[in-house]
Amino acid sequence: MTERPGGREILSAGLADLGACALVIAGSSATDPDLAPFLSGAHLRDSFVVAPAEGPPRLGFFSPMERGEAAATGLPLLSPGDLDVERWVQEGADLPRFWAEVLAKAFALCGLSGRLAIAGHAPVGVIHAACEELSRRGFSFANGNALARRLRQGKTAGELAEIRRAADGTAAAFRRVAELLAAAEVRDGDLHLEGEPLRVARLRREVGRAIAERGLEQPDSNILAPGEEGAMPHSTGTPERTLRAGESLVVDLFPKGRLYADCTRTFCVGPPPEALAAAHAAVREALAAVHASARPGIRGWTLQERTCALLAERGYATPITHPGTTAGYVHGLGHGVGFELHEFPSFKKNSGAEGVLREGDVLTLEPGLYSVEERWAVRLEDLVALGPEVNENLTPLPYDLDPRAW
Amino acid sequence: MTERPGGREILSAGLADLGACALVIAGSSATDPDLAPFLSGAHLRDSFVVAPAEGPPRLGFFSPMERGEAAATGLPLLSPGDLDVERWVQEGADLPRFWAEVLAKAFALCGLSGRLAIAGHAPVGVIHAACEELSRRGFSFANGNALARRLRQGKTAGELAEIRRAADGTAAAFRRVAELLAAAEVRDGDLHLEGEPLRVARLRREVGRAIAERGLEQPDSNILAPGEEGAMPHSTGTPERTLRAGESLVVDLFPKGRLYADCTRTFCVGPPPEALAAAHAAVREALAAVHASARPGIRGWTLQERTCALLAERGYATPITHPGTTAGYVHGLGHGVGFELHEFPSFKKNSGAEGVLREGDVLTLEPGLYSVEERWAVRLEDLVALGPEVNENLTPLPYDLDPRAW
Repeated sequence: MTERPGGREILSAGLADLGACALVIAGSSATDPDLAPFLSGAHLRDSFVVAPAEGPPRLGFFSPMERGEAAATGLPLLSPGDLDVERWVQEGADLPRFWAEVLAKAFALCGLSGRLAIAGHAPVGVIHAACEELSRRGFSFANGNALARRLRQGKTAGELAEIRRAADGTAAAFRRVAELLAAAEVRDGDLHLEGEPLRVARLRREVGRAIAERGLEQPDSNILAPGEEGAMPHSTGTPERTLRAGESLVVDLFPKGRLYADCTRTFCVGPPPEALAAAHAAVREALAAVHASARPGIRGWTLQERTCALLAERGYATPITHPGTTAGYVHGLGHGVGFELHEFPSFKKNSGAEGVLREGDVLTLEPGLYSVEERWAVRLEDLVALGPEVNENLTPLPYDLDPRAW
Repeated sequence: MTERPGGREILSAGLADLGACALVIAGSSATDPDLAPFLSGAHLRDSFVVAPAEGPPRLGFFSPMERGEAAATGLPLLSPGDLDVERWVQEGADLPRFWAEVLAKAFALCGLSGRLAIAGHAPVGVIHAACEELSRRGFSFANGNALARRLRQGKTAGELAEIRRAADGTAAAFRRVAELLAAAEVRDGDLHLEGEPLRVARLRREVGRAIAERGLEQPDSNILAPGEEGAMPHSTGTPERTLRAGESLVVDLFPKGRLYADCTRTFCVGPPPEALAAAHAAVREALAAVHASARPGIRGWTLQERTCALLAERGYATPITHPGTTAGYVHGLGHGVGFELHEFPSFKKNSGAEGVLREGDVLTLEPGLYSVEERWAVRLEDLVALGPEVNENLTPLPYDLDPRAW
């Protein structure tokens, strides 16, 4: 926590706001996004962290086989022995009772009583029942998930390095897509490569290979959405769909190492229709503008307002000028990226402190324009780290529609 | 639910046991293992399912952009409009209040009141606080996570096909590992390939590529653990470690498509030490025995007892003969596999109905022997589907230590 930008202060202030003496994070594995920031990449199954307002966080784990992994985190440990794990197993305790007992023991060992903030993504039925049992023993619980997310908003140097590694793998995958599209031939409007129609599935396979070669995963898949599919921002792209000349292809990749990266580019093989070219120019302009103004201290919502104003001026509908629109600019401007694909800072209107960009944040900026009717879409998304003096664009790739310009 | 082996009966009986009128599953995404069995692979973010004892389950979702994905599940929907989502967003409701309001609305629309069983892996602080709010409105909540896990124990035909696809990708990765090991040269005891020392990292890269080419992921990484590292069952294998002739190499791969597969083999390049060869023979014998007896109706714990008896007779320590042993056979015999890597059936002593193998189950059988002192390990793990007449071994790969025999 100490090396994390503002970590200690955010924890103390957050706990004070919640009237809680500690943050308790319960997860089914060390990849739980609330737990992971504490665990330095250690491999653990069910485990928890107790982070009091003062003093170091402690790690509780349940299997003696995980001793080495737990120790590697450098955290003071609450071992299976400390937590009487074997006793509850022998007694045949069900999971709610098991969690209630080990947490009660952990709280006693940490000298905690009264109100605690609870976070993590352990099974909700189990934890709710455990909390009810602990309530009968004098404890009470506040929602700590928002605080856990706030805590990991600003990245450590090690986390930023991991995001950079994921971003580099993303860039390699984009260059591979551009290379394949640039090599494609047009026959009767369809793209062909190596004698076969070029389908979404082929690009997806190449993306998967490029990302796997760098030791990254795609737990949330990816978006390779041509023409009418790109125009529905949620569509991931049908594998069998053959790509065509003169249509847009939205490629949105968000692979994960220990942390995520996220980047979008839009391609068009051959001359783009006029409306697509104009939308592309407007989105590039909007992205350049927001790159310049996304600095610590500004609200994400302010950036969204400015982007809407710019795009409205170019004649497009936006969520502010046309609430609920499904044409034009139809979504938010960005989101924080880290242990989850979508985390803080928030770009939402009603956000509180988590809606203010801070030094150390890593976030996306992703204006886009969509036309279901004309079957095209443009989205350009960069991943940006907010440094003390300047931003670092973690996805410094070309923006060109034409893959031959890459 | 209807096409799932015993699904409707398990739900009705489980709800009756819990005194609940419905199972409510809340997740942060459609990949939540409790939610996924209901969603047929649809892509959704925060969402929930309400499954009453009678009638079809209903799907609640929060974003109008997800309408198409939600509809593709074939479930009756609780749309953002039905749930008044926009109202709570406009009112700036925090997440606990938001969830409390949409769930209250959903319960009213489904005609549910009183006690509900809650499951899923949504943020625990949020859901606990939402349940506390709903308790003030007359609802109460039981732990439904175990029931959700019981519900997905028996696989549908579609789920089994998905596991088979993941198992096929796993097999391809094993064959690639065997091929590389078989091609390695020995110099001063170290393995070399293409003029370079053969390290764990190289094998891991090839495994990643083989798995990605089949559209699979490795969200929980993998184990490629040579010699002393394999002897610690939790060690994943240090990337820089150079492989050596005459040592064991435990390869445990557990990739995921929509569902997981899981398989382990152990290799040794060059003549194995006598103790390793003997352990390998004993583990093969134990695995063959358990393949024959793992049939619907038997308890997982009974299989563990028999495996311990067999290995103890061969002179090895086991968790039953030597509780807490870190040499010999040191772990459980297997686990169910599906939307989570470890699910039901359970092989634990204290398990209830979920400890009984059933038709439709997919599970691992994975005896192993370990010696930290002598720096070797053997584990052989097959993935098995329990059919009505016979089992299907989903990982029909060679068991040989020698990769040239593959």
